[in-house]
Amino acid sequence: MPSQNHYDSIQLTPEGQLKHFLTIEGLHAGLLTEILDTADSFVDMSEQQVKKIPLLRGKTVANLFFEASTRTLSTFELAAKRLSADVLNLNISTSSTSKGETLKDTLMTLRAMHCDMFVVRHSASGAAHFIAEHVTPDVAVINAGDGRHAHPTQAMLDMLTIRQHKGDFAQLKVAIVGDILHSRVARSQIHALRTLGTAEIRVIAPLTLLPRHIEAMGVKVYTEMSRGLRDVDVIIMLRLQKERMQTALLPSESEFYKLYGLTEAKLAYARPDAIIMHPGPINRGVEIESGVADGPRSVILNQVTNGIAVRMAVMSMAMSGQLKLNQQSTEV
Amino acid sequence: MPSQNHYDSIQLTPEGQLKHFLTIEGLHAGLLTEILDTADSFVDMSEQQVKKIPLLRGKTVANLFFEASTRTLSTFELAAKRLSADVLNLNISTSSTSKGETLKDTLMTLRAMHCDMFVVRHSASGAAHFIAEHVTPDVAVINAGDGRHAHPTQAMLDMLTIRQHKGDFAQLKVAIVGDILHSRVARSQIHALRTLGTAEIRVIAPLTLLPRHIEAMGVKVYTEMSRGLRDVDVIIMLRLQKERMQTALLPSESEFYKLYGLTEAKLAYARPDAIIMHPGPINRGVEIESGVADGPRSVILNQVTNGIAVRMAVMSMAMSGQLKLNQQSTEV
Amino acid sequence: MPSQNHYDSIQLTPEGQLKHFLTIEGLHAGLLTEILDTADSFVDMSEQQVKKIPLLRGKTVANLFFEASTRTLSTFELAAKRLSADVLNLNISTSSTSKGETLKDTLMTLRAMHCDMFVVRHSASGAAHFIAEHVTPDVAVINAGDGRHAHPTQAMLDMLTIRQHKGDFAQLKVAIVGDILHSRVARSQIHALRTLGTAEIRVIAPLTLLPRHIEAMGVKVYTEMSRGLRDVDVIIMLRLQKERMQTALLPSESEFYKLYGLTEAKLAYARPDAIIMHPGPINRGVEIESGVADGPRSVILNQVTNGIAVRMAVMSMAMSGQLKLNQQSTEV
Repeated sequence: MPSQNHYDSIQLTPEGQLKHFLTIEGLHAGLLTEILDTADSFVDMSEQQVKKIPLLRGKTVANLFFEASTRTLSTFELAAKRLSADVLNLNISTSSTSKGETLKDTLMTLRAMHCDMFVVRHSASGAAHFIAEHVTPDVAVINAGDGRHAHPTQAMLDMLTIRQHKGDFAQLKVAIVGDILHSRVARSQIHALRTLGTAEIRVIAPLTLLPRHIEAMGVKVYTEMSRGLRDVDVIIMLRLQKERMQTALLPSESEFYKLYGLTEAKLAYARPDAIIMHPGPINRGVEIESGVADGPRSVILNQVTNGIAVRMAVMSMAMSGQLKLNQQSTEV
Repeated sequence: MPSQNHYDSIQLTPEGQLKHFLTIEGLHAGLLTEILDTADSFVDMSEQQVKKIPLLRGKTVANLFFEASTRTLSTFELAAKRLSADVLNLNISTSSTSKGETLKDTLMTLRAMHCDMFVVRHSASGAAHFIAEHVTPDVAVINAGDGRHAHPTQAMLDMLTIRQHKGDFAQLKVAIVGDILHSRVARSQIHALRTLGTAEIRVIAPLTLLPRHIEAMGVKVYTEMSRGLRDVDVIIMLRLQKERMQTALLPSESEFYKLYGLTEAKLAYARPDAIIMHPGPINRGVEIESGVADGPRSVILNQVTNGIAVRMAVMSMAMSGQLKLNQQSTEV
Repeated sequence: MPSQNHYDSIQLTPEGQLKHFLTIEGLHAGLLTEILDTADSFVDMSEQQVKKIPLLRGKTVANLFFEASTRTLSTFELAAKRLSADVLNLNISTSSTSKGETLKDTLMTLRAMHCDMFVVRHSASGAAHFIAEHVTPDVAVINAGDGRHAHPTQAMLDMLTIRQHKGDFAQLKVAIVGDILHSRVARSQIHALRTLGTAEIRVIAPLTLLPRHIEAMGVKVYTEMSRGLRDVDVIIMLRLQKERMQTALLPSESEFYKLYGLTEAKLAYARPDAIIMHPGPINRGVEIESGVADGPRSVILNQVTNGIAVRMAVMSMAMSGQLKLNQQSTEV
């Protein structure tokens, strides 16, 4: 795995501005806080009558979803349109790759069409990195999920939601519950929570759904909800990635729900003011009891709202970083 | 079936403004006339060089088509874009419902993304009502066709076309011909024609394609074209909803055409200045003779043009009603 | 085949302005040069921060792709959006033609929705002509590829690329290499090169991939690369239209590559400053060696960039021609 400095140099300009958004790993707390502050201003804007600003007017954003996800695509599409960008949605699987064109040729072609930003979702870990480092470094690349590696905009919308409800990360105990093994979301959340100084990060899962050496990421490992949820301020449930589980790693959905599903009963272990999060779409009765998902402590819909704001934030920041770089290179 | 007052309270603000557009039923003549007047102003605008006004600028319209219809989707998409809205087209069948998410969760998620309007087409009668009443009452819901129940924008574009060509409804005899049984269009047309004071409304169909107790809607029933078309001012042909007819309710297409297809010969029964309407797409040689569809009395393409204008009218009126409600609730 | 005057009257206004863009055939050099000059100005604009001008603001462009092509569709979509038009993408195969509607009815319906321009791609030669001449003469029709007949915007972006790199056509030897028989691109390129006064136009292909009587188009025919490439200034490689070759007209891809694939070795026959073109998507190792496609003489990505500019040029010119005609007809 590349070192922190390596990631820095890909994602940041020499002045330390964002130019791609690929992973939380290697970004310092100041930059994460800048993303959250920028996103907060877009949350305010979305309450206005006209939810649109001309920050990306005349720019073209290409959504390259090699792995389908209507919901994530919609949030990026809305974020881009509310920044006044032109949007091109490309369903890559049915596109020119079927005519034998290589991925690199497709990307170089879109760059030649003066696309200014690629939002990339891919089943292979490292796909967005590869594009940003080796194919189109002068096009802003936003990682919308790559394999088991990272889903950094999801993690940042979670951080924004936590900060809005709980304030200072240094006082918080946060538990992440479910299929940690297959979850790029969990990986990005852990990096973000650590960087922002969270007091205690826990993961709760059956042994079969835990990656080896997960403790090295600075988390405490629990296999029982009764112990893992004790006194936590924030509970983050993960989706059961049924489509990603090819082998029988867990006995059954009902068995999983019995042991790890978030019910009112299990919720009693956490602090009385604990908030409940889930990246959606929810499998009711599998990861979470319906009443809990819709209850007063659930902030699941706040996460959705914050998802648009966070995407607007990283899109506008990365574009701004790329523009400064391009201006410098043409001035030289 | 709910009472008129029930529908009123769902569709209208306390001040009587439109806030959803779900059905013609229960709306009074003054409101229908306001829709027609507003639509007329958009017809004028569409003759201008720049067919675009900023009424919905910064608003997001989500087209939720659970039942596919390229033509109807296109008209709502164009209407929204000409009002300067951002548009999100969601093909729901291939979307997160396939990941096990409930319809309610999908809608609450879109609401949390600050979508301001849902245009809903669904094979289940009452789907749009259900959403407007029980799921997202503060998002403007436009019914783009629900089961056999209603297709109110189609009915209003028909009313606009009739008014443009014939003026006062109180002087008119109107005949609706074809598959009344399966037609949500016919149902909405009958409500609109009655509310606007049409002198005489007739339906013409074989007995197998007539709903029971249709007379209770205030129409005269005919099973023969020679009698039903006599002296009418307006002839509205319906599409044969082949995809909706699961049982053998009619002998054959050619048999249907012989008895109920609108030919030059049958047209002679009507008034010499009678206009001919059809919601499209036309099955030439099944419901209507080609020469009649393209002839001087056909106003079928006027209906298409009016379809954009009527959709712009109800979209802008419902959005305006929702905005006033939201302002009042925040002032309290 | 229709005469030159016939094409003129379809594509041009009485004053000689473009009103449709269907084929290069029959257009005079002055008009082609006007297209290239207009496109050059859009190339400059695409270097600006805001790549958007309001030339088509309030206009609606409908992309009617009866034959799928993600890449070509994307270029037209981006061109229209950068001209500030509203864009409607219609996948016709899954649309109302499946409900039995005729092509003519679909087009008349879109015209009634006040679509101002149709971008048409169709597998039948002459489809765009037919529409412009017989169906919707008052809607600007742009041919985005019809059967084996023409692909005029591709040819014009090639001309723009040649002019940018080589200047005066009267001094140039140009070779077109590959599947001439199935290529609408080659046909349009030959017309454009001749009209612009190219000194020598060559085609290089195996006899099985050459149309009969191709010499009548004013080209020299070669079956060997060693002779055909000698001293040329421009090499235009064609795609192997595998999906269009139904019979075994060529032995194998590797055999084709050995004889006609553009390698460094074969490139040595051409002038040392010869440029290399390809319409894309590239089949590396079939038509062209990877190193040649990416080498210093390749202008393949310039072609992509010019593709947007040329489409913006013909779209804005054809719209302007239609508008003048409409104004004249309403003044009368």
